[in-house]
Order: sequence, then C-alpha cells, then structure tokens
Amino acid sequence: MEKRTSYCGELNETHIGQSVILHGWVQKRRDLGGLIFIDLRDREGIVQVVFNPEFSKEALEIADSVRNEFVVTIKGKVHARGEKAINDKLATGKVEVLAEEITILNTSKTPPFYIEDGVNVSDELRLKYRYLDLRRPEMNNIFKMRHTVTRTFRNKLDALGFFDIETPYLTKSTPEGARDYLVPSRVYPGNFYALPQSPQILKQLLMTAGFDKYYQIVRCFRDEDLRGDRQPEFTQIDLETSFLTKEEIQAITEDMLVDVVKEAKNITIEKPFPRMTYKEAMDRFGSDKPDIRFGLELQNVSEVVKDVDFKVFQSAIENGGEVKAINAKAAATNFSRKDLDALGVFVANYGAKGLAWLKIEAGELKGPIAKFFPEDKAAELQAALQAEDGDLLLFAADKADIVAASLGALRNKLGKDLDLINEDELAFLWVTDWPLFEYDEEAGRYVSAHHPFTLPKEEDIPFLETDSSKVMAEAYDIVLNGYEIGGGSLRIYKKEVQESMFRALGFTDESAKEQFGFLMEALEYGTPPHGGIALGLDRIVMILAGRNNLRDTIAFPKTGSAVDPLTNAPGEVSAAQLAELKLETVKKETN
Amino acid sequence: MEKRTSYCGELNETHIGQSVILHGWVQKRRDLGGLIFIDLRDREGIVQVVFNPEFSKEALEIADSVRNEFVVTIKGKVHARGEKAINDKLATGKVEVLAEEITILNTSKTPPFYIEDGVNVSDELRLKYRYLDLRRPEMNNIFKMRHTVTRTFRNKLDALGFFDIETPYLTKSTPEGARDYLVPSRVYPGNFYALPQSPQILKQLLMTAGFDKYYQIVRCFRDEDLRGDRQPEFTQIDLETSFLTKEEIQAITEDMLVDVVKEAKNITIEKPFPRMTYKEAMDRFGSDKPDIRFGLELQNVSEVVKDVDFKVFQSAIENGGEVKAINAKAAATNFSRKDLDALGVFVANYGAKGLAWLKIEAGELKGPIAKFFPEDKAAELQAALQAEDGDLLLFAADKADIVAASLGALRNKLGKDLDLINEDELAFLWVTDWPLFEYDEEAGRYVSAHHPFTLPKEEDIPFLETDSSKVMAEAYDIVLNGYEIGGGSLRIYKKEVQESMFRALGFTDESAKEQFGFLMEALEYGTPPHGGIALGLDRIVMILAGRNNLRDTIAFPKTGSAVDPLTNAPGEVSAAQLAELKLETVKKETN
Repeated sequence: MEKRTSYCGELNETHIGQSVILHGWVQKRRDLGGLIFIDLRDREGIVQVVFNPEFSKEALEIADSVRNEFVVTIKGKVHARGEKAINDKLATGKVEVLAEEITILNTSKTPPFYIEDGVNVSDELRLKYRYLDLRRPEMNNIFKMRHTVTRTFRNKLDALGFFDIETPYLTKSTPEGARDYLVPSRVYPGNFYALPQSPQILKQLLMTAGFDKYYQIVRCFRDEDLRGDRQPEFTQIDLETSFLTKEEIQAITEDMLVDVVKEAKNITIEKPFPRMTYKEAMDRFGSDKPDIRFGLELQNVSEVVKDVDFKVFQSAIENGGEVKAINAKAAATNFSRKDLDALGVFVANYGAKGLAWLKIEAGELKGPIAKFFPEDKAAELQAALQAEDGDLLLFAADKADIVAASLGALRNKLGKDLDLINEDELAFLWVTDWPLFEYDEEAGRYVSAHHPFTLPKEEDIPFLETDSSKVMAEAYDIVLNGYEIGGGSLRIYKKEVQESMFRALGFTDESAKEQFGFLMEALEYGTPPHGGIALGLDRIVMILAGRNNLRDTIAFPKTGSAVDPLTNAPGEVSAAQLAELKLETVKKETN
Repeated sequence: MEKRTSYCGELNETHIGQSVILHGWVQKRRDLGGLIFIDLRDREGIVQVVFNPEFSKEALEIADSVRNEFVVTIKGKVHARGEKAINDKLATGKVEVLAEEITILNTSKTPPFYIEDGVNVSDELRLKYRYLDLRRPEMNNIFKMRHTVTRTFRNKLDALGFFDIETPYLTKSTPEGARDYLVPSRVYPGNFYALPQSPQILKQLLMTAGFDKYYQIVRCFRDEDLRGDRQPEFTQIDLETSFLTKEEIQAITEDMLVDVVKEAKNITIEKPFPRMTYKEAMDRFGSDKPDIRFGLELQNVSEVVKDVDFKVFQSAIENGGEVKAINAKAAATNFSRKDLDALGVFVANYGAKGLAWLKIEAGELKGPIAKFFPEDKAAELQAALQAEDGDLLLFAADKADIVAASLGALRNKLGKDLDLINEDELAFLWVTDWPLFEYDEEAGRYVSAHHPFTLPKEEDIPFLETDSSKVMAEAYDIVLNGYEIGGGSLRIYKKEVQESMFRALGFTDESAKEQFGFLMEALEYGTPPHGGIALGLDRIVMILAGRNNLRDTIAFPKTGSAVDPLTNAPGEVSAAQLAELKLETVKKETN
C-alpha cells in the first residue's frame, strides 16, 4: 500500500503541478469524448480524476472497469481546470487530477441508495446499510463534529485541572432510579450486576477521596423504551468538583459550552447564560425545559375570568386550579374550527379536558365562549393578554400541573407550526431552584426530583421530614432549545442530612444502611462539600447538528429491533451459556 | 464557600507575604508551646499551617478541636520558615501559612489506616475504604498519571487525524471469543445483549464507512476469573485505520507510546522499538511476550545431548521434542538441592515432568545427571552454553510447547529471584509474524490465534483450508517488560478470503452467514484495506506506575467478592425485576 499524499477533499490550487497519491471511493464515473472522469471521494471531500489515453492508456482501461463505490488508489498530477470546467460547487472545483495509475483495491456491488446528501430512503434501509449511510457527507460531517465536540469538552476540562477517572460499568443495582440493565454474575449465581445509570455515587466517593475535580465522558444505561431523543445507552460528560459554589460549577459548564459551540459551529455564545427558576419556567412556559427562542408565553388569567359565568373556568378555579392562556399573535386566520378541534385533541394527551379559544375581530371576542364575557370582562381580558385584532387566544383550565403540561406542549407545537423558531439560534438557559421532591401518585410518597444525594437548601433542611413539599434543592438544569441537555446539583456531604433525606424518602434506617451504608460511612470520613453536573453529549450533538433524532448522531444507534444486522441488538444465546449463569428463561405459556 | 487561591502543595517562596485561602484535609496536628501546627493536605501536596494565639485566638481554639482527616478551610498568610524550621522533605517546606481563620467543613472519624504512603494494611481494608486509600499520595499520584497517559494518547491521536467515534456497549454475542457478559433484554425476552470484548467488528464497519482513522478509549468486557493483571472490565486504546501498512500502524503506536512515556515519566524511549518474530521469541525466551530486560535465554542443546545416555533427554528427542537449557550465570551457590527441588515443582505447573540441573565447579559438571556426560560431552555442553565455574544449568526436555512454557516461566522467575531486572527500564518489543491459527486440543480443530478477521499473509491465503498450520498472519503484538500491552493486525477485506477463513475455522457457509452475514455483506460494498491495534490502558499504567496488580491502577477495581461495599459487585435483585425479564434463577438443589 503506497502512502497517501493528501485527502481528495484537501486538493486546491496550491497543489497544482504536484504528484499525488489518493485513496478513495468512486463517487461517479462519466465517459466523455474518449476520456473517463471519476469523482473520487474520501472523508474530506471529492476531487475529479481524469483518465486520458494520451496520458496512460492502461489507467484508462482499468478506469473503464470501475463502478460506483469501488475503492481505488490513484497516482497522478494535479492540474488547473480550464476556466469553463471550474466547478464552484466543489471545494476542489478549481483543480483535477490527471491519472497516471489506478489500482482497484476492492470492488462494490451497486449500493441500495446513492452515497450523497438528502437521500430519500427509509430509516430501516439506512440502518441496515449503516456503513453506507455513514459514507454520505452529511452523516460523515456529523461524526466529525461529534469528535470536535468531545475533544473540546476534554481539552477544556483538562485545562481546568480536572482528572479523567474511569468508574466501573459493572456495578450494583441501587433503588431510586429508572429501570436498570442487569448482568447476571457467573461467579455468584442469582446475583446481578447493574449497568450504571450514571456514576453518581462513585464520583461522589472520588470527592471523598480528595480528587477535587473529576470528569469522565461516560456511557450510561437506562432500560427504557426508545424515543427520538432517548437511547437506552447514552453518553454523559460527567463532572464533579469539591469546594465550589453552584455558580462556579455553572461558570465551568458555560465555559465548556461556549468553547464547544465555537469549535463545532463557529458561533460565539454570550455568557453568562440566562437563568430562570423552575417556578418561573413552569409559570411562563409550562415547561421545566422551556424553548426560549420564541414567545407565546403562558399568562395566568384566573383573576380576570374568575367571575365569568363559564363553568369550566369557574370550577377549575374553585377546585384550586387555574386558568391560563396563550395569545397566538395574528394567528386567528391560521386556524379553522377543525384545526382548533385538533388542538383540543392534542392537549387532551396532556390531561386537559378541553381547549377553550377566542379570536379577536374588530376589537371583539369571537368564538363559542365569547358569550360568557360581558363587555367589561372582554376588555379586561384583551388588556391582560395584550390581545389585538387577528389574535387567537387559547385557554386551559385545570389543576396547575395539567394546565402547564397542556399549554406547555401546545406552545411548543404552535412555535413550530407557526414557524416562530429561528432554527439557527442556540438558546441556552439555566433552570434553577428546583423542588427537592416530587410527589409520586403511584407510589403514594415523595420521591427525589433529581436523585437522593441532592443537597437541600440550607434553610429547608429542618423541613426534610416534616414538610417535604416545600424543600428546595441546590439543583440546576441546563436547557438548550427546549431540550434538557444536563443537570447538576450540590450534593449532601453531611451524614445526618443524608440520613434525614433517606427517611424523607420512606427508607427505614435499616434499609437505608443496607442499600447505602457504604456511602453514609464515607460521609463520616471527611467528605468535602461537593457538587457537579452531567451533560448529555448525544443531545448536544443532535441539536448542534440541527437534527431531531439521535439516530443521526450516534454511529450505531439502537433500532428497537431484535434482528438488527449490525450486531447492535439482543440475540439468542446457547443453553450452555444460560446454564453457566444458572438462569432459565420462563416459558412463554406460563406467562 | 470561598474560592481557593491555590492548592496546598503549590505554595513556595514566591507566595511569601500573600494571603491565601486553602481547602484541605488535616494530615496531622501537633501542639507545641501554645501553638498548634496542622499539616494540611490536598491533591497537590501538604503545607504546614500555624495557629498562634497572637495572630488569632479564635482560630487557635477551633484548630484545637480538629482531628486527622477533618476537612477545613484556612485563611492565612504565607510566611518564610525560619532557617531551622525548613523541612527539606516537603515540597512546600520553606514556607508555612499563618492562620487567620479556620472553618471546619466536615469532621472525620479516626481512619482505619494512616493516609500516607507505604501503609502496611490488608488489601481488603484498603478496598473497603477505597476513598481513604485513594487519598494516600502514592495512590493519588497513580491516577494523576493515568489521566496524563490517557490525555497523551488522545492528544496524539487527535493530532494525527483520528476521529473518536463511540460504539455501543449493548451488542450481540458472537462466537469465537472469550466468555461474554450477557444482558437480558426486557423487550425481547429470552434474547440477550452481550457486553463487547472489543469493538472489533464495529470499528471495521467504520472503515467500510470511510472514516479512515478511528479511535476510541473504550471499556471491554470478558467474563473471566480475576488475576492480578486481568480484570473482567478493562480499558483499551482502540484504533483502526484504512490504507496503511502494518509498519505505518506500528509507527503510530510507537509515536503514541513515546509521547506517553515522556509525559508520564519524563523518560525518552528510542524508536523504532525492537522487533522479533513469534518464532524467535518462543525459541529464545519460551514466551510470546518476552521480558527482554534480562538475559537467561533458552538454548537448544538437543544436538549436544542427543547421544548422552540419559533417558529423559533421549526419549524427549525421540518423541519429536527437544532439550533446552538456561544458564543461570554464577547462580550455582544461590540454589540448594531443596531450592532446586522447588524449581522442579514450579516448572511442573507448566507441564514439565521434571527439571534437570547441573552446576559447574572447577570446570566440571556436578549434580545428579553429571554422570551421564562423558568428558567430551561435558566440554561440548559447557561450550554450547558458555558455562563457567559457578554457573547453574537448568534443563527441560519435552515437546517444544512444554519446554517453552516451563523454561519461559522459569526464566521470568529467575530474573526476579536473581535480581537481574532493572525495574526502571521500560523495554518495548514488537512480536511479529504470528501463526494465523492455533490448534485447540479440546475442540479438536484450529481456532484463530487472534480473531477470525486477521489477514493471512498474501502468499499463505491458498493454504487457509488445506494446510492451516502453516498460514501466517499479518499480526503484531506489542510487549512491555514481559506484559502483552497490545495487539493488532491487518484485517481481511475481501469477501472470498473471509469466507475461506470461516470455513477453515469449521463454519459451514450457512453458519458463517448466520453469524457474520452482515460483515460479509459489508465486504461487498467497497471495504478498504484496513488494520489497527488495541492497547491495554490498565496494564500500561500499571507498568508505568511500577506496580504488578491492577488493583492499584483502577479506581474501583473488582474484588471478586459479592459483598464489595463500594457498589462495584453483583447484588441481589427483586423478583419483580426478574419477572420483567422473564427470567428465573435455577434452584440450587437442581444443580
């Protein structure tokens, strides 16, 4: 194998006259007037190679036999293209390579789709031939960018004095999280490892160990169902620090992200990023991860409508709920009755019993519920919502969480449908001041909003066990364009507080000790104040790449199928393997 | 939390007069003449803090209550120590900090062992309190070095144009490897993921995808029993390239390792590293991973001893075996008869039926088998082995593989016991020209010496199925101080060759297609010539740290116990979890 002198995509006018050796794939072959033209592609781009019988008859003959996606080596000279032959669409379009030799390294069958951007083929076919899909420049570029993103995170953290320390992937299952992937132990039959949902406890122990600043770009696992923005294995930029305030941890995070966006997209993001409390986010956007690239904020009109003789509004308020509205500016004519019925069906998915609406025409309210508004109330409502002619007002009336979920989702939908989003914008946002607990209706108890190691705000610690709902956490999430891309907190570092926390979560002292005794013991041996954050690499890359499905930004994503051809799916194992693990699969008929 | 101005270990004479804020752990407290002295430790070192009532009475009072391993914040001023008080053993020994304030951030019980180098406590206790063990400077420094090593590998690969691309950890079990860890699938009950033993196939598909240069520092898994130099999960520096020769891949590997040794140890290693064929390594050292820091080479004396009337030697040779010897120079007096009997027991572990020996005294052979050597043979033997007075000659006579295993192991033992090894030396070695197959007695067939994707030497391809034993591989291992630290090869990239390889391994065309059809299909779509290498990070760090057990160089190593306190061991899971996976553990009594 001769040594490549440069990548195809790197050639330009500075190379004119030079002899080159290129390795690449045949993008396209054209025969024209006794010559053969090959577009040769490698990971850096495409260059045109010309075969001329006057230059090399033998090379021309071999070139005649190549087909798309053959792998070849070309030896030749870089020439300037004639004025008319310049191809402005190609980075290398001012030059071409006159071939002296061509060697076919490997052949190719005709691929099932073209190796080019924007192919219109099914996801299934693209995933079956993932190695061809990844050859397409737009996909290739995503993984180049992913590499740049990862490297930039690392470089920043290295420069800031963080140590990259690896934690195990075969760990012990602990309660209080999502569903674990389990790994049966051969040495201890009946016992199982769990794949980590995050290295949370271990990174905290590294703080106890005095490492002070830890990071790891680490795979995490949750046995949950696939979604476009969720894969069962995912990669976190995971860091933990000692002796820092949450503002300092946020500043480190911002420093990293500013660098990442600069390196990956050449865009300069301002810091500090905007901050908003959880309460404000829920109030104004109906979401704990608001997309702040557009308005359509939720406005509380309970005070205005509480006297209006519309039962739906009144009973919501009487039952401790609220009435909120979105003013979709100038959107009245965009929505027919049928469209509005469809929006009603949409919000029903989020628990809303219906979606009341009003349009403003000639200064007046129009629509089925307009009749409930006397003139003064109509004016008051318009004033409250800054409503003008042509606006569409959309109302939800229910308990606060249902109103938030319904209108929050509706807001995101309207933002897209009404084309209010600047897709080039990157809107980072910190969401702070989270409640420490949330009430789990199913379990009938309070559970951790983040995880049970989150530090409560100092002043709320006395209420951990007595008034859980009011306890606030030293926690912060980071949001980008409406996606949660990370979350962090300060952690509990005093044993008494951790014990109180476990009691608040319904553990007995015995069960807490059994599950987390090793951690509580570590807190007794000089654990420093510490905190950290974990960022979702997959989602960050997905957003920076302008995609909305992780399948485009993970090299070998899970497909949710058991027959994935690329070894990335569960398969059958032998009876001997199971016997060694002392496991049996339960017969289907007994289930 | 106030912001640290510097680490304890960083303070020196340039800081004199400055106000500092330090966070750290109390290494030691001494009360002396109304003053209190605290050695304060953080990850960068130790500095002495002085509490003087004339400076701050309040600080002195608080300092009086601190104990070892309390976590404190100190505000104070850096002073020069008096001439007599300078401590040359401490990097910060020319200065001390006069404390103005001290804040106790957390307390500590008395640790079960001292936080200092060279503690004499059991491995079990160190692992139970791993977070304390890791605080000890020698351990802390190992993980700093591990970080440096990892970062240096990455920086070099980034600079060389490699893309860091992640491959999945939940993959499909494939045959032809070690024992997989299995992960039951909830969505497809009865199907299992396997944790990867290496990303071999996926990185090859990335070459088919045209990424050209891939790397990943990646966890790999083998469900094998623990050893000092083997953990069931281990970290590889895994790389794959297209269009490069094996010499180019070796040169990249050398470039990385030279950088790593320079950064981690400030030692300059010469490149290229020495190279030796597999055959030579086995002949001269009885090992495919020879430690070349010392001699004691194996010498074949079959020709000399074949006429000697000693049955053990004769029958070994008659049965197609050989007789080899090690000349342990000047070691005759180091070994009593009892010692030599013990060496006989030692080599028996490697299959040798015994260990013949001779000592040279006054130019004559001495020992139980001396009588078999007539004068001319004795002289011939001494000449062949360059034997002089005081030398000890150790013989093994058997089939070649048993001789190699026995004397190879004996050689390593003698190297250590006779103190022939310069522990500061780093001896890298390439072992090349491997056989493609090895015969598996148990399976009664040839199996891959490396893996079934290894490229056979061009000229041997016709013999894949007809004369497997003679087929040589385009494979290369890299050895450091007698440890295999990595292995690589060029890979098969032609479908016909891969098919032939699978047939040679006993696959039918159907079973090969069923197991590896996706790979064979990829070979039909323009797979480039490619090859790579994988290096064992854990072992490299272990050797650079001068250790001989991975427990010292992995932050949370597996202990082989099911009751590991640090979440890093298998545990019990609930019946509900198993039911969801449609699994049952087989009752013990039925086994």
